[in-house]
Amino acid sequence: MAEFDLIDHIRRRCDLARADVRLGIGDDAAVLAVPAGHELVACTDTLVAGVHFPHGSAPADIGWKALAVNLSDLAAMGATPAWALLALTLPEPDAGFVAGFAEGFADLAAAHHVALVGGDTTRGPLAITVTAHGFVPPGQALRRDGARSGDEVFVTGTLGDAAAALRLLGTSRAAEFTFAELRARLDRPTPRVAAGAVLRARATACIDVSDGLLADLGHMANQSGVGIEVEAACLPASPALLAIFDGRERCALQLAGGDDYELAFSVPAGQAHDLAQDLARIGCAATRIGRVVDGTGVRALDAHAQPIELPRRGWEHFA
Amino acid sequence: MAEFDLIDHIRRRCDLARADVRLGIGDDAAVLAVPAGHELVACTDTLVAGVHFPHGSAPADIGWKALAVNLSDLAAMGATPAWALLALTLPEPDAGFVAGFAEGFADLAAAHHVALVGGDTTRGPLAITVTAHGFVPPGQALRRDGARSGDEVFVTGTLGDAAAALRLLGTSRAAEFTFAELRARLDRPTPRVAAGAVLRARATACIDVSDGLLADLGHMANQSGVGIEVEAACLPASPALLAIFDGRERCALQLAGGDDYELAFSVPAGQAHDLAQDLARIGCAATRIGRVVDGTGVRALDAHAQPIELPRRGWEHFA
Repeated sequence: MAEFDLIDHIRRRCDLARADVRLGIGDDAAVLAVPAGHELVACTDTLVAGVHFPHGSAPADIGWKALAVNLSDLAAMGATPAWALLALTLPEPDAGFVAGFAEGFADLAAAHHVALVGGDTTRGPLAITVTAHGFVPPGQALRRDGARSGDEVFVTGTLGDAAAALRLLGTSRAAEFTFAELRARLDRPTPRVAAGAVLRARATACIDVSDGLLADLGHMANQSGVGIEVEAACLPASPALLAIFDGRERCALQLAGGDDYELAFSVPAGQAHDLAQDLARIGCAATRIGRVVDGTGVRALDAHAQPIELPRRGWEHFA
Repeated sequence: MAEFDLIDHIRRRCDLARADVRLGIGDDAAVLAVPAGHELVACTDTLVAGVHFPHGSAPADIGWKALAVNLSDLAAMGATPAWALLALTLPEPDAGFVAGFAEGFADLAAAHHVALVGGDTTRGPLAITVTAHGFVPPGQALRRDGARSGDEVFVTGTLGDAAAALRLLGTSRAAEFTFAELRARLDRPTPRVAAGAVLRARATACIDVSDGLLADLGHMANQSGVGIEVEAACLPASPALLAIFDGRERCALQLAGGDDYELAFSVPAGQAHDLAQDLARIGCAATRIGRVVDGTGVRALDAHAQPIELPRRGWEHFA
């Protein structure tokens, strides 16, 4: 299967007409029209086999996740997704892999009306880099640097499932009936695109939880020039996580596990209730997990308001 | 060196202010403003160690080339470069590599006033994916599909140097004094951005020569629904190439070697002279190498107008 066949296959599977795509896959570059009165939001994320997904993951799950982690970044900006470019590096031509990959990628792309507009296929160790583009009204992008002392801190969905799946992988407990639910969260994260749109121009700061809650809130605190206190007892957990892990172990998975792709955001205390209600209305649970304080850094507190110390605070490449 | 230090280092080295960058590196995504009345042009290309550059290449050369191959794609569209995102995968934290890489990347970025607006650093086998963005006036992007029977076919610069350097690498002839010139063309290709702007709205079709002249003209012929005849005797060669290779070997390097990053384009015969003159005025040589004919496919002809058969027509991953 030549490079052009690979791209062609993925293109056919991701066939999706958008009027703002003036020229799609098949030339040296794509030609695109950002709608008048909007800003462009762009991000890029790489997945490497054995680092960002377990070796032996289903190709369709890899395709899904490669796009999902990028749409999650767009969601964290409050952007409406539009286009993606795909750089796929494969050790060998593998029609089965490409077909599965394209299916998972296309399923998520279709769900968010994202057009695949370009890409590159190369030979090498398995890795995928997706660049995603979306739009925001001018000045309304959600940022990391707007949290203010007194704001409440929330997170969408639940935390810790993906990290729990990774922890269980290859152990005898991976046979437990709830493992499949955790594994699905690792393999097919849900980018919170609709939630990001609701938060736009309302949350004071927002970030997606990819490296781990404490690490990601650390970026928010640092860039906002504030401190953040997280109440560990408030962290939302799925029934599957609650069934398998408890105590300190669950707490560590939720605070530092990462790969959640939920949105953590700050909101002025007086507006928190209305915002949570608006999120509930689109089917997205949001849980208050702490507050913004004067100072620096992120502290996790237990039920007695005592600091929780963890061996690691999040996923850091090269740390 | 943590991920954030790596990114920060590259950011500082690539510090370049553009008013159209509303929010650069450091958030979940960049926020960008496409100038009113322009279309966005976007492309992505991956370099893998040992595939797209020799193992042991200087980090600064790798940084340069990673951006250059993408700017070359923008040039082939006639686009003015503006922004880039960088996804860098490294086997281990290597401050020396990052410093060198950033230097080469930043040198070329500065030359084209390109701002690095986002990126991702991951752990894994050495690979680099750059996504580049530029602008074109609406409807003026150069495409591959506009070549018409009777057009003349031109190429900028010279062909075959990079492939010659690869051929000589590790041989005793790599010591010849002209090798350094060839190697520079392999390591530091010159994206023909200014030439692309001159060609905009004047060339009927354009493509950059990355896979090899015949392969790339093959895309143009195929997408334009025409045939192309290349006169091998007309192919422009550098003094260094002429000094080391001749006859059939040189011909093969020029026709099928690839990695040239010159622009091949078609132009109506009556306008060819003026266009070549305008290119010469900006210091870019352009040489007539053939013509567009009725039919399909690309044929290389020798000085007696006999077809030249080559073992391979270009670089094809997975071929």
